[in-house]
Formats: sequence, C-alpha cells, structure tokens
Amino acid sequence: MSPRWWRAYPQGALGADVLAGIVLAVLVLPQSLAYAMLAGLPPQAGLYASILPVIAYSIVGSSMTQAVGPVAITAIMTYALLSPLAVPLSPHYLALSALLALMSGFAVMAMGALRLGFLSNLLSRPVVSGFISGSALLILVSQLRLLLGLDVHAANTWEQLLLVYRLLPHANSYAVLMGAGGIVVLMASRVWGVGLLAAWGATQFFADLISRLVPLLLVVCSTLLVVVLDLDLHQGIATVGSVEGGLPELALRVPEWSEFRLLVVPALVMAFVGTVQNITMAQALAMKRRERVAANHELIGLGLSNVVSAFSAGMPVGGGLSRSAVNVASGARTPLAGIVSALCMLGLVLIGTSWFARVPLPILAACIVVAAIGMIDIGEFRRAWSYDRADAIAFAGTALGVLALGLQLGIALGVGLSLATLLYRASAPHIAVVGRIVGTEHFRNVDRHGVETLPGVLFLRIDESIFFGNLQAIESRLMAEIAKLADPLDVVLILSAVNRIDLTGVEALGEMHQNLRERGIELHLAEVKGPVQDRMQRTSLWANVGCNVHLSAQVAFEVLQNKPA
Amino acid sequence: MSPRWWRAYPQGALGADVLAGIVLAVLVLPQSLAYAMLAGLPPQAGLYASILPVIAYSIVGSSMTQAVGPVAITAIMTYALLSPLAVPLSPHYLALSALLALMSGFAVMAMGALRLGFLSNLLSRPVVSGFISGSALLILVSQLRLLLGLDVHAANTWEQLLLVYRLLPHANSYAVLMGAGGIVVLMASRVWGVGLLAAWGATQFFADLISRLVPLLLVVCSTLLVVVLDLDLHQGIATVGSVEGGLPELALRVPEWSEFRLLVVPALVMAFVGTVQNITMAQALAMKRRERVAANHELIGLGLSNVVSAFSAGMPVGGGLSRSAVNVASGARTPLAGIVSALCMLGLVLIGTSWFARVPLPILAACIVVAAIGMIDIGEFRRAWSYDRADAIAFAGTALGVLALGLQLGIALGVGLSLATLLYRASAPHIAVVGRIVGTEHFRNVDRHGVETLPGVLFLRIDESIFFGNLQAIESRLMAEIAKLADPLDVVLILSAVNRIDLTGVEALGEMHQNLRERGIELHLAEVKGPVQDRMQRTSLWANVGCNVHLSAQVAFEVLQNKPA
Repeated sequence: MSPRWWRAYPQGALGADVLAGIVLAVLVLPQSLAYAMLAGLPPQAGLYASILPVIAYSIVGSSMTQAVGPVAITAIMTYALLSPLAVPLSPHYLALSALLALMSGFAVMAMGALRLGFLSNLLSRPVVSGFISGSALLILVSQLRLLLGLDVHAANTWEQLLLVYRLLPHANSYAVLMGAGGIVVLMASRVWGVGLLAAWGATQFFADLISRLVPLLLVVCSTLLVVVLDLDLHQGIATVGSVEGGLPELALRVPEWSEFRLLVVPALVMAFVGTVQNITMAQALAMKRRERVAANHELIGLGLSNVVSAFSAGMPVGGGLSRSAVNVASGARTPLAGIVSALCMLGLVLIGTSWFARVPLPILAACIVVAAIGMIDIGEFRRAWSYDRADAIAFAGTALGVLALGLQLGIALGVGLSLATLLYRASAPHIAVVGRIVGTEHFRNVDRHGVETLPGVLFLRIDESIFFGNLQAIESRLMAEIAKLADPLDVVLILSAVNRIDLTGVEALGEMHQNLRERGIELHLAEVKGPVQDRMQRTSLWANVGCNVHLSAQVAFEVLQNKPA
Repeated sequence: MSPRWWRAYPQGALGADVLAGIVLAVLVLPQSLAYAMLAGLPPQAGLYASILPVIAYSIVGSSMTQAVGPVAITAIMTYALLSPLAVPLSPHYLALSALLALMSGFAVMAMGALRLGFLSNLLSRPVVSGFISGSALLILVSQLRLLLGLDVHAANTWEQLLLVYRLLPHANSYAVLMGAGGIVVLMASRVWGVGLLAAWGATQFFADLISRLVPLLLVVCSTLLVVVLDLDLHQGIATVGSVEGGLPELALRVPEWSEFRLLVVPALVMAFVGTVQNITMAQALAMKRRERVAANHELIGLGLSNVVSAFSAGMPVGGGLSRSAVNVASGARTPLAGIVSALCMLGLVLIGTSWFARVPLPILAACIVVAAIGMIDIGEFRRAWSYDRADAIAFAGTALGVLALGLQLGIALGVGLSLATLLYRASAPHIAVVGRIVGTEHFRNVDRHGVETLPGVLFLRIDESIFFGNLQAIESRLMAEIAKLADPLDVVLILSAVNRIDLTGVEALGEMHQNLRERGIELHLAEVKGPVQDRMQRTSLWANVGCNVHLSAQVAFEVLQNKPA
C-alpha cells in the first residue's frame, strides 16, 4: 500500500472521515487526560499528544485506520521506567519523559528502516498477553491512591501498595464513593450497554457509539457535581487543577549525556514493546480490510509520531487498541479522520482547557481502572492452560515477572519464556518405531498397528526437524530402541517429517553413523526431503552414509530384506 | 549403568587399568603444572587437583573412561573470571578460586540432582566451538608474556595485549628461543609424530603413546638444559620456582558473604559450561562403547569432584578431552585407572616436588599454546559456512563475544545466538502452492510440476510447525497468494508437515478463518496430524472450521470440485 492515501482519496469518504474525526476527538478526551496523569505528566501533555503526533502518523503511517496517541500501556511504561529516576510532575521528570519519547521514537524508526520488524516474532501471544496483564495490575496499584483520595508517592509498586494499605483508615470517603460509583457505571455500560440500547431499538452503530460516550458523560456529570457542591473545596476531592492552555510549546531541553545513557535501555524496551503491539494490531486490522500492512513502514510512522511528541507534548505515544476501535466504529475510512480529530483537539486546547480544572481525579482514575481491568486477559490464560501448559506458564511467568521484577526484566523474561517454550517443545520430538502394514507400502507405528518388521532392523520415524536442542533426545531414544533388539544390524531413520537439519544435527548423525558402524550396525536414511538432501550433500556425512540413503521406507525395506546375512 | 563398577569388576582388567593409570599420571604431569599456572594458581594446585578430585569422580561418576582434572577451558575461565577481582597468586585470589570450585561444584551437583542436564541443549555445536575457540585465543594472549620472558600483568586481555606489544623490544631472547622451539617440537610431534613412528615400524599403540610422551620429554630436557647452563640464574629464564611438597592441606577458608555474592554469576557460568562440555563428551564416549550415559548422574560426579577440589587443591576441575583420550589410548577399562593415576600423582607429590623448581616457564607456556591452538576449531567454522551461514555467524559471534565482552557475556551471547538461529530458521518456513498431478492423487508444487488446480481455490502446503515466530510469514504469504487469484473462494492449508501448532498459531488461524470469511473466502484444513488434531479439538477454532477439515488434499479437492458455485 502506498502511504500517499490522499492521492487516491476515495470518493464520498470525506463526510465519513470528518464525522469519525470529531467523534474520535470527543471520545478520547477523558482517556487523554487520564493517561497523561497515569504517566506522571501534567494533563495537557495528553491533549498535546493527541494533536501533532496524530497528524504525523496520519501522513506517514501505513495503516488506514489505526489511531495513535496516549495509550495505557505506554503511559504505565513511562511511569514505571521514569518514576525511579525522578519525581513525577517535576521538571526533571518532564524532561526525561520527552527524552524517552525521542529516543524510543528514533529506536522504532531505526527498527523500521533496518527492516527489524521481524523482531516482534520474538514474543508469543501468551507472553504478550501476560505482559499486558501484568502491566494492567501495575496500573491498578498506581490508581489506588486516587481512588482512595490519599496523597502518597513511593518509589516502587510494592512500597506504594504498603503505603496505601497503612493509610487505608485515612481514605477520603467522598473520593471512594465517587471512584467506586464511576467504576460501577463504566463496567455496567461496558457489559450491558450495547445490548440494552439495542434492546431499546437503537441501531448497532448508535448503541456502540453511545456506550462509548459513557466515560465522557461521566466526566461531565461528575465535574458538574464538583462545581455545584464545591466538593474539591469542602470535601477534599482532588481535581485536575489548572491546565495550561494555548498551543504546545515546540521545544525540547537539550539532554545531558548522563540522562541519555540512563534512558538507553528503557527506550529500547519501550520501542520493542511498542513495535510488537503495533505490528500485531496493524496486521489484524489490515487482514479484516483486505489491506496488506507494511510492517517496517508502520514502524517508521509510529517512531516519527513519538519523535514529534517529544517536541510538542513530551509524552511517549503508541498505537491504541481502543482508539483504533473507536475510529473504526465511528466510520473512519482513511487517515484523514485522524487529522480531523487532531484539529478538533487543537480547538479544544485553544478554547476549553480552563473547563478541565475541576474534573475530579477519582473519576479519571475510575476510567483508567476500567481500561486496565479490560487489559487483564484471563481468557487467554485459561485457553493456554487447556491447550498447552507451557504457554500458560509463559503467560503467568511474564505477568508475575512484570509485577515482581519490573517492566524491563519482565519483558526480558517474556522473551526468554517464549524461546524456552519453543525449545522445550522441539526438544522432546515425537519418535515412532514403525513397521510395514502387511501387503501395503505403508509404514505405521508398531504400537498402534499390526505391522511386519525385519529381524535385526530398526525403523525409526522422527517427526521433528533435527537440531541442537533435540539431539540428546533422539540419541537416547535410538540407543534405547537398539538395546531392545536381540542382534541389531541395521537402523533406518525415516525423515519424512524432518523439514530441516542444522549443522549440529548433521555432525551428530555423522558420529552416530561412525559409532554404530564400530559396533557392526549400519545407519540408513530414508525419505530425506529435497532441501535437506541438498544441504546434506555438502557434508562428509553424505560421503559416508551415501549408499545407505533410500528414496522411501519401502525401498529400504526391500533392500534390507534381500541383504545377504 | 550402575556407578558401582567395582562390584562387577571385569576379570583380567586389573593389569590394563594399573598400566593405564601409571601412564596417565606421567603424561598429564606437564599439563597439571601448566594449567594451574594458566589459572593463576601455584603449580602444586594442579598436582593436588589430580589426586582427590580424580578419586572422587572415579567412585561417583557415570562414565567408565572419562577423566577429570585440571583442564584448559576451566583454567582460563578461572583466570578470566577471577583476575578482575584479585591479583593472581595472592592469598585472596587462591581463596576465591577455592570458593569458585566449591560453588560451581555445588551448582553442577544441583543441576544433576534437579535433572537439569537438558539445559545443555541450549547450545548448538557451532556456538560451543565458537566459545572454546574464543577462549583459546584468550589463552594464547595470556601466555604471550611467558613466551617473551616479560613480567607484565594487566586487568584484562586488551590491556595485556597492549602492554606486551609496548614491551616487545625488552623480550628475553632466550625465553623466545626456548618457547618457539618448544612450540615447533610439539606441533611437529602432533602433526607428524604418529605417522613417522608407524613408518619406522612401531605399532599404533606405541606410536600413539610415544607421541603423547613428547611434552614430558620436552619438559625433562629443557629442565636439564636450565640446570646445566644455569639459564635461570644467568639468562633470566623464568622457572616454576619452589613447589610446596607434601600432602594437600584439607582446608577451606570460610568465605565472606560479599565474596560469595561476587562469585554467584561466575560460578553459574562455570557450572553451565562444565555441564555442556562434560555431557557432550561423555555421550560421545558412551556411544562408542555401547554404554548409556546417565547425564544427570554424570553431573553429580563432576560437581562432587569440584567440591573435593575446593578443599584439597583450591582449583576448579573439568572433564578433559585430552585426558580422556590418553586414558582410552593407554588401555583403561574402568575408573580404577583414574584411582591408580591419582595414587601415582600422590607419590610424585610426596617425593618429587623439589624436582619441579627449575622447570622453565616458556616450555610450559609452549605446552599450553599448542593445546590452545588445538582448541581453535577453524574446521567447524568452515563446515558451518558451507552448510548454513546462520550457524557460521553464531560461531563467529560467540568467539568474538568471548574476546570482546568476556566469558560471561560471551556465553550469554552464545545462548542468544543458538536460539536466534533456531528462531530465524523456523520463522521463514517453506510454503508451497500445490496442485494435483493429473490422473493421480499426488499434490505437488505448481512451480515444479505440471499440475491441475481449481478456479478460485488455493492449495497451500506449509512445511513447518506453526508457532508464534512464523505466523507473520505465513499470513503475508497467504495474503500474497490470495491477491493473485482473480476470484478467491477457498483456501486449503495442507498441514502434512506440521508437527505442532502452538496457542498463538491456533488463535491466529481462528482469526484468519474469521477475517477471510468476512471477505467471502472459506478456510479449509487438510491432512492434519493426529496429535495436532487432538489439541485443536479443545479450541474454538475447531468449532468454527470443523466441517472444513479434510482427511487429505485429495478429499478437499473432490469436495471443492463438486461444490455448487
């Protein structure tokens, strides 16, 4: 797909795109404020991050309907990575956040330019879900203080939890009521909203749209409540406070070398997670819409919007699942919808920021909490548990790793667990002793079928590519099966399901051949696939075992049947 | 195999074992001195490490002929891991070395007890060779100062190299002559020795034995030269110096907590490398001798001998390839040979250590250098290069990693590269568009054979297990092939070579099915293997795609051929 969508702008899409853009801007408003706070940044950062970065992505990105902006996972990562380094909301913290956006943006762009998008293949889906679920739990903990009306700050999650627990008796009951009420309303509208509206006769489109309006309505109503009852002044309900109005300053403090060094690893972690999430999402959207996603191109768009955000908002941005869903649901057809939403947000920032000052924080926290609860993917864990325990362990390990060790080690653990499950599965290959079904040329497992075999001959079918990780298993199975034979003379390895043999495997087969020959046993290969044979012919194994390679198990059977004893 | 070899001691093996034990003790004498020095320890450590640890292994280990003791790779690891922490030969260094042996010994035993021997599957052979080759280059650098008669010590390899280069003009020409001469003699005896002796009429056994005697003869002759010409006193040739005689002190300084913490990672690295090397070697020896190696049992033997070494010699030990080869070559049949060699070594230590004082260091360095040169496995690199570039890159990366980043990061890089090659290969699966060979039931690649296809139907054979790492490749190939069809209606995935589908794969197939259906395309599966089908039946994919699963490509062809348009 060409990124130049405006050159072939579809006829009649303009109305749909403008409408979708306006809806998007209004609907993501509470999110934008909330995620800025989640990231430890002033509320206007979230608004600014919904303007220029969105425009940059609309022009450069590859997905027609994906929306970027402040998202929960990027926000909690910003908070988790930076809060140990500086005090949230402090000038130093803001500078680090902008630098993080800049560095991770360049890292993502570099990954795109160097065609490293395939690195996102490093993570299995249970691991990604585990990572997001673990992060969601971190988010929940971070919002507790706002929901309880407590003013506590700790350096890490566990201390935070402990502090909140200790101060529980001092919780502000108005904040608790408001927060809990908000959560109930939001959850209810999520679970029953669309169905209820549809039952009342609304079309699917409007039911969907209205149920997505609930967060905004909640913010408006609760703010009115605060204003009317002066809850902030009399009852100590925390509010957003003054929001800087006007255009974002296009500026970036020149970072110090030490700050730069400090953020190298966090920026890479952020870039990696952003890459994985974005490519997965863009691919799913593209397949639905018969488009093809240019993964590396997509990365350049995401990276650039982060770089732009560094200068204009100082907040890392990401591709948002719920933002994109809103975009699609409200009928967007091209990236123009994104540009329209950015312009609307700009209008809001220019005229309306003073209205945000008395938005109550417990309600924003409730919005965040509900989003976080939606990120916890118990279903994936359950599916993994019933399908494959190794995947379930990878999910749980990554989630617990994020909670216990933090985001950086958590994601590293996730990569490790992805690869470990891969290795673990391949290291226990399915191997069957086979024989010939009488009267046919079919060879089947001796345990499951009545088959004929030859005395002193072992037919072994290996159902897995041979590589360094499963050689031990293959060798010990081979030895065990040979030991069962009274007078072993020949071993035939049937390689019909072996798609690949690595160098370690070829060399080990060569040694096996040598060692068995010293014991008077001949090693044969049968049904070697074309590509495997091509490579093997370059090795000394081929020269040694050459005349023992048979086209099929049947040919090997006939040759050995007629061999003089 | 029962470890109680003495209960079923083979008749008539006693003579062979005693002879082999004596030969082994004499032949490994120069090695023992040299490797102790390589490890930064006093020469007697190498002698002591050839006594009690060898006896412990003989009693507990699982291999009949493997020999443990001071080995090159363990020695250079000790030096590389500890020399940044303390000054070699200092009391603190000796204490750390003993602690390292103790901790890595316990770690290896724990790996054995917890049945973690399979962890050695984490490394491919090119990576192991790369690691050993890189370590060998480190050894070469460490011996330069002795070969040049320079007295320099640096904290790391690069500084050492730089210092040696700067001091090159001050090299001791007698040391250079002696060292170079030693290397030439040793290399020549290695390359031509056995052939030459055989040509003169010696039996293979004696030719082998005599050529292995060369290092000892060289040490004896050069020591005589030093004594006769007083080369150490007049020409500044460095010698071993006083060697403590008598029995090893059975002692271990109680380590401080900080030392313990400092050595956790080095000890684990050492245990890991020891495990990999030992299991690989034991397995090769066992296959030759029709024995089965109990990998986890083997680890307990190796670990225990390190623990014993910690108390009696203070030096980590390993399973030595050349020690084991000598053992086999000199006719050993049971571990009794090891016990005899240990007793001989004990005798030497009790009566002869004063004879070692004037052994010239350049000759010991020459022995080490020749051993190190033998460890550089250019052949493996060349084979990897011609067989599979990814393996060659893994070899080179690990070797350079060891040189540039040190042993710990080098081995971590090696594990990473092993897994990366695995992932890289599996992430680019072979996928073929197939059709039916006219008049048969065989389906073959459309590019290679004249085959018939059905309009609007795509037959795609995937020749690799489906997992998180290759889904992107499969999805984009599928989309590309669908885009080529004028009016796509059905897609048949032939899974005859798919041994396994992980959860990520099953979920992605489900989404593919859903997304394609929204576009009016039906997804079919054919030739699903039994175990794959068993798992799949537990997922919602099965419920959705159920009636589209066909026993064979032929059945799918017939069903689609007769489908009403």
